[in-house]
Parts: sequence; C-alpha cells; structure tokens
Amino acid sequence: MRKTIVEMLKRAGNDFISGESIAGELKISRTAVWKHIQKLREHGYEILSRERRGYKLKDAPDLLLPSEIQIGLDTQIIGVEMHYEPSVDSTNRVAKALAYHGAQDGTIVVAEEQTGGKGRLDRKYFSPRGKGIWFSVILRPNFLPKEASKITLMAAVAVAEAMTRFNLKPEIKWPNDILFDGRKLVGILTEMTGEMGKIYYIVVGVGINVNINREDFPEEIRDIAASLSEMNGEEISRVKIFRAVLEELDKLYREVNANGFGEVFKLWRKYNVTLDKNIRVISVIDGNDFTGKAVDLNEDGALVVETPDGLRTVYAGDVSIR
Amino acid sequence: MRKTIVEMLKRAGNDFISGESIAGELKISRTAVWKHIQKLREHGYEILSRERRGYKLKDAPDLLLPSEIQIGLDTQIIGVEMHYEPSVDSTNRVAKALAYHGAQDGTIVVAEEQTGGKGRLDRKYFSPRGKGIWFSVILRPNFLPKEASKITLMAAVAVAEAMTRFNLKPEIKWPNDILFDGRKLVGILTEMTGEMGKIYYIVVGVGINVNINREDFPEEIRDIAASLSEMNGEEISRVKIFRAVLEELDKLYREVNANGFGEVFKLWRKYNVTLDKNIRVISVIDGNDFTGKAVDLNEDGALVVETPDGLRTVYAGDVSIR
Repeated sequence: MRKTIVEMLKRAGNDFISGESIAGELKISRTAVWKHIQKLREHGYEILSRERRGYKLKDAPDLLLPSEIQIGLDTQIIGVEMHYEPSVDSTNRVAKALAYHGAQDGTIVVAEEQTGGKGRLDRKYFSPRGKGIWFSVILRPNFLPKEASKITLMAAVAVAEAMTRFNLKPEIKWPNDILFDGRKLVGILTEMTGEMGKIYYIVVGVGINVNINREDFPEEIRDIAASLSEMNGEEISRVKIFRAVLEELDKLYREVNANGFGEVFKLWRKYNVTLDKNIRVISVIDGNDFTGKAVDLNEDGALVVETPDGLRTVYAGDVSIR
Repeated sequence: MRKTIVEMLKRAGNDFISGESIAGELKISRTAVWKHIQKLREHGYEILSRERRGYKLKDAPDLLLPSEIQIGLDTQIIGVEMHYEPSVDSTNRVAKALAYHGAQDGTIVVAEEQTGGKGRLDRKYFSPRGKGIWFSVILRPNFLPKEASKITLMAAVAVAEAMTRFNLKPEIKWPNDILFDGRKLVGILTEMTGEMGKIYYIVVGVGINVNINREDFPEEIRDIAASLSEMNGEEISRVKIFRAVLEELDKLYREVNANGFGEVFKLWRKYNVTLDKNIRVISVIDGNDFTGKAVDLNEDGALVVETPDGLRTVYAGDVSIR
C-alpha cells in the first residue's frame, strides 16, 4: 500500500497529487491516505502537503525500503518478493526460515543492521545500522547440488558488475571476497539445503560495506576491512548500489539457469586477482596450510594450485595472496 | 532410568532381582521402581513379580525402544544418542529439527510408524506401525559437501551388510535401492544442509520393510515393494535387524571418516545389480529419459552409462534395469 503511494508521488514528480486521487486509486479513505503519509514521514520520507493541492515528495530516505528498492527495479526474479527489517539478528537466518516455509525463488531479506551477522565458519560479520547493505537472497535453481558452490562465484561477480556501474574497480579474491587495497569490501556466505539430486534452496548472504569510515570498523578488523565510500572518496547511495546489485544478480541468475556458469566464469576471471599469484591456502577442514601458485579455476569453481609436490585442487579454504 | 532397569533385569537373566536392590542402585524409592515396572509393562515388557523375591524379565517386546536397541549395542557414534517415537509424521523432519538445534553426530530418531513418511522428491513412503524400521540418523562428517552424496551409498551398503548377517542376499540398484525379486525392500533419503566448504549436518532417513505381507502393501506399490519377511520366508525380529544396521552403519561411518569411501565403494560393487546391465534413466531435473549400458561407478558415486552417443554420467535419476 505505502509502496504504491510512494510510486504515485514519484510519478507526479514536481507536481502535487491530491489526497482524493490517491484515495480513489487505492480505494481507501482520505484519512487512511493521511495516516500512510505520516508513516512514510516516520520512515524518513520528506513529503510536503498543501491544502487543496495535496502531497508532493521532496526527498526520499537512503533506507533500503521496498518503496525505494522495488519501484522501477529491472528484475524478473530477484527482489520480486522482498522482506525489509530495520534490525535483525541475521538476514541469512530469516531467509532460511522463509525458504523452509516455501518463500519463492528470488525472495530477498534486507536489514538496516544485523545484530548477529555471520560469515563463513560461524565468524562474526560487522553490520552496523545504515552503513552497509546486509541482505540475503533465496534461490531455487533447477540444477544439481554439485553445481551449488558456483553460485557463490556468481554472487561475487554480480556485486563486481554493479560496482563497475559506479566506476569502482572491483578485485575478486578466490572464491568470493571483493577487495580494495587488499582489504575486504564484501563478504558472501552461501548456504544450501537439499537432498541428493535436488536443491531445496540456496540462501546467499551478502554484506557490502558502503559508508563506513576506516576508524568506525572494530579494531580487530580495521586492517582487513574496507568500504565503498573509502574506495570512492565520498559517500555512496546505498539504495542505488543495492538496486544495481539486484539487477546484476537477476541477469546472471537467469543466464546461469539457461546456459550454465560459462558467463559467470568469464567475468570472474576478468575481475579475479588470485590467478597467477603465489598464494597460501589454509584448509577449512583441518587447518593445515600450504603455499603454491594459483594456476587455474576448474569447471567446479575450485582453485588449482601448483605446488612443489604437483597440482592441488582447493574446494574450500582461506586464501591469502603473498 | 527405565533403560537401566531393563538392563538390570536382563543381566539377572533367569533370576529374580529385588525391588530393593534396583531402588538402591538407582537411588529412588521402591514405589518409584514399581511405577517404572508398570510403565515397562505398558510398553509390552512381560515382567514377573514375586513377593520377597522381586522382579524377573520374562519377555521383551519387539519394539524399537532405547532399552531394546541401545543395551549392548556395539557402536561408538551411531545410536549413542537415540530418540524414540511411537508415532511421528516423518523421522527425517524430527531429525532435521534436532540437528538444527545441535544434536550430536550419530543421533538417531526411530518411530514405530510414520504418518507422513517421505521418500525422494517428496514422494510418499509407506511406514505402517510395527511392521518396519523407520529411522533417521544425523551425521556431522568432517569432509566437504561435494562428498556428501556418497553417504547415501554408504547407508545402502550398511543395510546390505546387516542383511547378510541374517543370511539374506541383498541386491543394490544404483544408487541406494535394496531389492528383492526386483522389488524395493529399503528406501533411503539423504538430506544435507551446509555452507560452501562445510557440511552442517546430513540426515539419512532409512525405511526398511520388515514384516509386511504382500497384500498389506497399498495396491499402487504392491508390484514394486517387498519385505524382509517375504524374502526370509518368515517374520524377523525388527530389534535384531535394527541393531545390526546401526552397528554396520557405525563401522562404515568411522571407516569413511578415517579413510574415505574406498571400502564403501568396494562393498557397493559387490552388492550392486546395476553395473553391466542395460538400463533406462529418467532425469530428476527435467524428466527426460535415455537408455544405455551401466558401465561404471565413478569416484563421485555417479553412474557412468554407455549410450550410442557416448558416455553419460548420471548424478541423480530414476534407474530401471531392462
């Protein structure tokens, strides 16, 4: 309802639109319209009202509200269904619960802040209010579980493509970290539930540090974290970035469903900064490490590393570039 | 508590054991002992009681109670923790909920009946009260998600090994159906939840048709289902079969964790009736089918099929032997 009101206000542009015409289109009373306008103002919308002329939108908040994200969003699957939370423990947790109860392919959950944001291996993920984009997307692809790990490369490439629209130059470290100056801008956690031969759902959690000053990161991650505003030299609209990310995700997801991961791999190679580098790999299974030269990405999305003992294939691990 | 009482009664064998000594060992009152004895009788235990002599176990029920399954069970991981339900919608559903809340590696959930038993692809699984073994096991292996699909072969081999202890000759159709006379004795549904690089948990649901007469199967599955009693010529103790299955599962699971799937593959090949046969495969992804000759099991546990157009690798599908 409120999304439709914002849509009408935006369509009216610099003109006022009467409470009567809004009421008519939505089939509600003018008092109800006024109450929705009040709610929108509480959310940060600046809406002028003039007697006998009606309402006019002066400014929209940089909040990740459905009324800001979905209106005019150019996607077919991703974000068609959207859940917005001012604050939540973890968007992945909410998304998994929604998926378990049948939420549709492409449903997103976004929060202004996460109070218990999680990265891989149960690591904490710093997600302060209003300073980044903390969201999860539910996917129900029609391919086999063994393909699922490549979705995480797809998500990294989608964010990279979106950044490119804003003239930012993303660098992807295998498999899905996006770096600026060697520090992490974006974290991705992909979780899957399925049976042998069938994916029930995948939840891809994405955290994008947008407008975080270096000194605002907790001390323990200050030397390994970065934000888009730092990279850009000035603050960036979270709404614009988020819309771009959803559109790129939608485009790549449809491509993957139709033709597999060829395009994702091609783009991943373009953005990657891991291949041809000397790297150190720490196993997520046993904590053991080894060093070598990253020589290829194989068809499973795994990293092929040349070591003194021959080629090794890394399916999961923490990689550092030496 | 009741499990310990049954254990004491069994240890006493043909002798009576006094209420006083049971009360002493358990540090409860004699009245409390008497109440537990009443409960055990309700569960089907025949327990004699004589004044001044105490209690003696005359007969134990063929129920899959922890007191019947766990006492003397020779396992280190599987079934150390056990949940028993007289009736439940689906043991996999219960096991997944327990796993989500942290249940330990090897925890089992067993039910006398399932009211909504599920097979692969949401198919119904017939699970009548007291006539079969309907159970799920929670596994938390320390290997990568890409290895998980082989767990389903391991489960089939474990059941086959257990059957062999009772002089039954199991035949495994790829990947995990156990057949008698071309009809299905055992169904296995393996579900997994994890992130890229880490399995959170696997739930393996196993349904074993034990004492079901052919005419007691619903008409629509009568020509494709079989039971151990039919194969054996007479009824079989569910308790004995179940204990054997858990012990074989435990042995193979520890082997897999220590040395990988080599032993599982070797045993699978021994029991399999798919390799070297002409088969028809229906894809679980798009429903398309093709025919060919099954020529190998590859290192992922997938079936390699020789067709007029060359070799095809089947990761998931319904296979029928022609």
